[in-house]
Order: sequence, then structure tokens, then C-alpha cells
Amino acid sequence: MIVDISKNILIVGLGLLGGSYARVLKRFGFHISAITKEQSSIDYALQESIIDEGSTELDKKMIGKADLVIFALYPHIFVEWIAKNQHLLKSGAILTDVTGVKGSIVYTIQKMLREDVEFIAAHPMAGREVSGVENSTDKMFSGANYIVTPTEKNTPEAINTCLELGRLLGFSNVTTLSPEEHDEMIGFLSQLTHCIAITLMTCNDKEHMEKFTGDSFRDLTRIARINDLMWSELFVANKEVLLTQMDLFMNKFKELQTMLETEDIDGMRKMMRHSTQRRALFDKK
Amino acid sequence: MIVDISKNILIVGLGLLGGSYARVLKRFGFHISAITKEQSSIDYALQESIIDEGSTELDKKMIGKADLVIFALYPHIFVEWIAKNQHLLKSGAILTDVTGVKGSIVYTIQKMLREDVEFIAAHPMAGREVSGVENSTDKMFSGANYIVTPTEKNTPEAINTCLELGRLLGFSNVTTLSPEEHDEMIGFLSQLTHCIAITLMTCNDKEHMEKFTGDSFRDLTRIARINDLMWSELFVANKEVLLTQMDLFMNKFKELQTMLETEDIDGMRKMMRHSTQRRALFDKK
Repeated sequence: MIVDISKNILIVGLGLLGGSYARVLKRFGFHISAITKEQSSIDYALQESIIDEGSTELDKKMIGKADLVIFALYPHIFVEWIAKNQHLLKSGAILTDVTGVKGSIVYTIQKMLREDVEFIAAHPMAGREVSGVENSTDKMFSGANYIVTPTEKNTPEAINTCLELGRLLGFSNVTTLSPEEHDEMIGFLSQLTHCIAITLMTCNDKEHMEKFTGDSFRDLTRIARINDLMWSELFVANKEVLLTQMDLFMNKFKELQTMLETEDIDGMRKMMRHSTQRRALFDKK
Repeated sequence: MIVDISKNILIVGLGLLGGSYARVLKRFGFHISAITKEQSSIDYALQESIIDEGSTELDKKMIGKADLVIFALYPHIFVEWIAKNQHLLKSGAILTDVTGVKGSIVYTIQKMLREDVEFIAAHPMAGREVSGVENSTDKMFSGANYIVTPTEKNTPEAINTCLELGRLLGFSNVTTLSPEEHDEMIGFLSQLTHCIAITLMTCNDKEHMEKFTGDSFRDLTRIARINDLMWSELFVANKEVLLTQMDLFMNKFKELQTMLETEDIDGMRKMMRHSTQRRALFDKK
């Protein structure tokens, strides 16, 4: 469906991600409309020709004609939106999202959704430390991952549409995982990583440390500048998985601390060699 | 003393750091000699005109004429070298080093050293993930910190010489700390950071994770590719300080885990805002 540029795409939530989606898709010739909270976002997007039309209201005509609706909202706002407004959707519409956790969202939405529309979940693994449509860019997705998380409720057609959307957006790696696999992966690679960064950033408030900071510390804390509203919600939405990943990390960290305490040089060197070997896998190809 | 380019500089240990020192200092016109383990390092450095002369032996003439000796060795090898070979040093020579820990090295060396030579310790906070003189570069020190760690035994002249060396090498921030202040700072900013990176890299061996890795995880594990021989020695050489820093980190991490477990959103958001504010201090100026 998606390759047919006569189709209408509606983006709900025109922030950094929604805006970046709009920028890329507009270039392909799709008709892009947007519903978002702030009039200033709409004004900016119209002025930059990122969208064809936009509204801060629940514009029934706009929603009713959309063939593909992309939700770029906070998880709980997304769920609320569907509960309240799904009657406005066009019959046969395909819905997708950008939510960073899946298990706690996908089944909830699919369960409450009308039979004649389909929700196929996706997670574009891309972001910046800034937010808002004003910071959106059509260069954000190159080199990044786009993960579609289908369930038994999804049709092959909707899954393919969503995969194709990822490729159109310019993601380098477009793939599928189950919601559970996705959440475990994201719990480790992204959420645990953010937990570590904010802990490192706040565990020692000694003054003037910044004068001596080198690249290592800066690298480990780049993501310590964090959107507290969004990430606290994402952490709780993936609570059990993240708690397990935090345990894994803490147990290993204690192992290292014990080796240092007992001056077990061989043990530490073995762990460091394991680390070096495993890191090689993660080099950018 | 150091500005007088008629003086002889000897570098003991011609690896990444020693080689990079040689590259920069040679440009100023100093006579640079080097003693190192491998003939291939000497050959390379001569061919590249990084040094004027070099030897894999304890060349008595070379050592005996050096006004400034820079030791770029592993900590225990540095201590051994001084114990065995200090009788070969020129009277009045100034010695300095590049060792990444200070408390466990500086006092040991100064205590055993002849009265007519002086050791002034320094830590160039620069490095790369590669090693060897072949990877040395004269661009490594721009933007980096150079820390001199004087004790009561040091003269103002030697301290100034060492500070001037740091400036000549092109470090952006040249400063002094006590050995104890240095070790606390490095324990937190560098050693704890490496402990975290290698723990993250080894705590979850699930396969195919690299396919989904984004920049956050890559940033946090860049330094997980680690020289096990050197870092295990540096960790043990700063053991008590590092154990304390690891405790600070672990306690904060457990706090976060408890907040997640009890879904204390306000607590998590407060910690994240603290993190964001504090990270702003560490932005590159």
C-alpha cells in the first residue's frame, strides 16, 4: 500500500521523530497531514513545507481520510488517543507508532482496536538529545535500526507495509522481532545504558571534576542529558525486563569489585579480554 | 630549563605516548633519544625522524647525557627501572613520567631516588584505543588535560619545567593536583568509567545483539576494548580509591533500581533532572 503515493499519511505528534518522518515522506510525494499539540509546530512545519496541512484539533476530516496513521506520542497518550478517538479512523486504515517499548503497548492497543483497522507496531531506533519539530531532520535514520514487532493479530500485508515504511524512511537495518524479544533487547542495549549513564552522572557530586574530564567520561554520559518525563515512563513500561537487566549488570559489577578487592589480576584480565573480544562485534561495519 | 633546546631529552618506553611526546618535542628542535624494548620501534622512529638516536640496550652514554628523562612505562617496570638503573642518570637530571596513578608511584620513586636528581610526576590524560609508536601522533594532546602532581620533595624549578613541558606538548589544560587529589579524580572519571564499560560489555552474552546496537551502547562501550595488562595493574595501584568509587556508583544504581521497582516516578524524574543539569557542566567548552 505504502508505495502508492496517492495515499494519505497522518502523523499524530509532530515532534522530533514525527517531524523527521514527515520530512522524508513528503519528499516522496505523499500527502502529509499532522495533528499536534502546539500551533507553533504546525506553523513551522507548514512554512518548511514538511506537511501539507495540520491542526491542533481532532480534525475529523483529516483523520477520516488517512490511509496510514503514524503515532509519535508518549505511550500513555497514545493508548488514551486510541481509546477516545478510534471511531474517527478510516475503515481499512493502517496504524503504526514509534514507541520505544512494545509488550506493554502493542497488546493493549490491538485488544481495544476496531476490527476494520490494523495496528502494526514499530520502533525506529533513532534519536537526538534535542526535541521538537524544529530539530527534525531527514538525515536521522541512515545507519539506524527500524524494528517491526508483529503479533498474531497482524496481517502479512500490514507487516510488509510497515517494513516498507522503514525502508522508505532510510533506515539501514529494517527487521522484525516479537514484542518480547524487542523489549529484552531494548532493555539491555538502551534502557540499561541510560540507567548507567544517569547513575554515573549523579553518584559523585564532587566539584570541579569537569575540568579534568576526558573523552571516556563524556562518552559514557552523553545520554545522561535525558528527557525525564519520557524515560521514566519508558522505564516503568518495561519494568520487569529492565529490573532483570539491572541485576545482570550489578552482579557482574560486584564480581569485578571482588576481584579488585582480592587483587585477582588473572580474573580481571580475563574479564577485560572477554570485554575486548565482545566489543569487536559491536564495531560499526 | 626545558625551553633551552640545547638540552637532551631521553624517552624511556617508545610506545603510543612516548612516541607522541617525541614527535612533538622533535619539532621544537630538542635532541631526542629513546630507549625501548623492541628494535622495530627504534627503526620506525628513526625512519620517521621522530628521534635522533635510540637503543634497546641500557646505553650508558645516552642515559648519562640526558637533562630530562620521560618515563612512559608500566608502573611496576618504571619502579624497577629506577631501582636498578638510577646510578646511570646525569647529576641534576629531571625525571618525569606518564603514569595514570600517582599515590602508589610518586612517593616510592622519590624515596628511593638519588639526592642529585629530581622526579616530578605528571599524567597526560590522553590516549587512543591503539598502541605502539606506529600509532603515535602529534595531534593527541589538543583539547586534553596534563596534570602535574608535585609533592613536598619537589622544587619550584622542576614543577615549572614539568608544567612547561605540558604546554609545549600542546595540552589545552595544564594544571597541578596533589597525588591524592589526582587519584580520586582519576578513580572516578577514568577508572570507574572503564569498570562500567567492561561490565556492560560482559554482563549479557545474548547473541545477535550487535545487529540492533545504536550509538548509545556504542558510546558506553568504546573503552570496553581495553589493554588488560595495563588496566589491571592501574586498578590495583589505585585499589582503595577505586573500590570507594565503585561503592558510590553501586549505591546510586541500587537507589534507581528501587525507585523503578516501586514505580517511584517522581524520584526517577528528580534523579534524571539532576543528571541533565550536572551533565551540562561537562559539555566541551
